[in-house]
Amino acid sequence: MDTQLINELKERYGIVFQDVTLLEQAFTHSSYVNEHRNMQLSDNERLEFLGDAVLELQVSHYLYRQYPDVPEGKLTKLRSAIVREDSLAKFAKKCHFDQYVLLGKGEENSGGRNRASLLCDLFESFLGALYLDQGYEAALKFIQAVIFPRIEAGEFTREIDHKTRLQEVLQKSGDVTIDYRLVSEEGPAHERTFTIEVYVDDRLIGSGKGKSKKLAEQDAAAKALAALKA
Amino acid sequence: MDTQLINELKERYGIVFQDVTLLEQAFTHSSYVNEHRNMQLSDNERLEFLGDAVLELQVSHYLYRQYPDVPEGKLTKLRSAIVREDSLAKFAKKCHFDQYVLLGKGEENSGGRNRASLLCDLFESFLGALYLDQGYEAALKFIQAVIFPRIEAGEFTREIDHKTRLQEVLQKSGDVTIDYRLVSEEGPAHERTFTIEVYVDDRLIGSGKGKSKKLAEQDAAAKALAALKA
Repeated sequence: MDTQLINELKERYGIVFQDVTLLEQAFTHSSYVNEHRNMQLSDNERLEFLGDAVLELQVSHYLYRQYPDVPEGKLTKLRSAIVREDSLAKFAKKCHFDQYVLLGKGEENSGGRNRASLLCDLFESFLGALYLDQGYEAALKFIQAVIFPRIEAGEFTREIDHKTRLQEVLQKSGDVTIDYRLVSEEGPAHERTFTIEVYVDDRLIGSGKGKSKKLAEQDAAAKALAALKA
Repeated sequence: MDTQLINELKERYGIVFQDVTLLEQAFTHSSYVNEHRNMQLSDNERLEFLGDAVLELQVSHYLYRQYPDVPEGKLTKLRSAIVREDSLAKFAKKCHFDQYVLLGKGEENSGGRNRASLLCDLFESFLGALYLDQGYEAALKFIQAVIFPRIEAGEFTREIDHKTRLQEVLQKSGDVTIDYRLVSEEGPAHERTFTIEVYVDDRLIGSGKGKSKKLAEQDAAAKALAALKA
C-alpha cells in the first residue's frame, strides 16, 4: 500500500485503517485487476456499492436536520446535486485520491485518472471501506470534514434554488420570517406574468417576475440575494 | 395517536417511541394535513426522504455481507428489487401500517389506503421516524425482523437471478464449488445457441441453453434449482 496515502489520511483526517487491505481494495480500479490477474486482487466496485448508500444516508440526515422547513421535493433535489458524479469527483480530487488510485495501462492512457465517473466511484468506495473498517460515525466524521462545509458555504443551494439559499443567508443571524407576496398577475391566461415581492420581517428586500408564481418567487429571492451581496 | 398502533409496535417488534409526535407524523399523509389546516400538522414526506436512505444503507450492508462473491452490478439489481415500490408496499401491509395511516377523505375514497406508492412512502416514513427516535441500530433491528427473512427465503433473488439463487441454496450446507462449463456452441454467428452445464463439486446438477453464454448459464441454474426442489 502507498505509505504516502496512509500518511496523508492520518495527517489530514486523523484516519488510520485497521484493515489496510480494505483501503487497498478501495483504491484498486477494475482495469488494474484485469491487467494483474495473477495477483488475485479485488476491485473497488462492491465497496462503491456500499459507500454510495453510506453517503446517501449521511447527506440525507444532514439536510433533514439543517433545513427543518424545506419540503421533501427540495431536499431530494439538493441531495442529488451533492451526490452527483461531478460533485463527488471534485471531492475525490480535493482529497488527492486521484493520485493514489491503481489503474490499468489502458485506463491510464485514456485519461481515467481525471475521469469524473472513475473519481466519483473512487470517493464512494473509499467511504465504503471506511464505514466497514471503522463504522458509521467515522465515515460521518470524514464527510463532515470534506462535504458539509461546502454545503454550508452555499455551493449546492445556490445552483439549484434561490429561495432555499435566501432562507439560509437570512437565518444565519437568527430566526426571521420570510414572506412572498403576490403583487400582480398580468396578461392573457396562456401568457400570464406574475410579480412577487419578498419580505423579511415585513421589510421589502426583493421583487421578481415569472411565468408562474413559483418562478416569480425564485426570481424575487435571486434579486434579494443580489441586493444583500451588493 | 392510535393506541392500537402503539400496542402493536410494542408487542410485535418491541418498539416504544420516546417522541410519539414523530410516530404520528410518520402516519400522517399530506391529504390529511390539507383537510385539517387548522390543526397545523406536518405530513410524513420529509421522514420518507430520510427513511428511504436508512433503508438503502441497511439493505446494502446486508447484501454486501450476505453475498461476498456477488459482483456490484448484481447487488445493485437485488437492492432495487427489495426497495422498489411494490415490495415496500407489501411490507407496510404485513406490518398493518395501512390500517393506521391518516388520509384525507378524497384520498380515502379513491383507494389511497391500498395504493402501493402511498404504502411504500408510509413504510419509509416510519423507518425515518424510528431512526430519528431511536437510532440506526433500532431501525436495523426492525428491518432484520421484517425484510431480511424474506430475502433469505429467496423472495427477491428468485425473481431476478437464478445463478445467485442457486449459489444461495447450495451454500446453505457449507462451502461448495459451483462451476459453469460451456458444452457446445451451435448455429450461424448471428443465431448462435450455447449449451452450458452447471456442476457442484464436480457433480453435474443442471444443463441449459441460451442465445448467449450468460442466458445459457441462467437457464442451467434454473434447471438445477428445479431439479433440487423435485
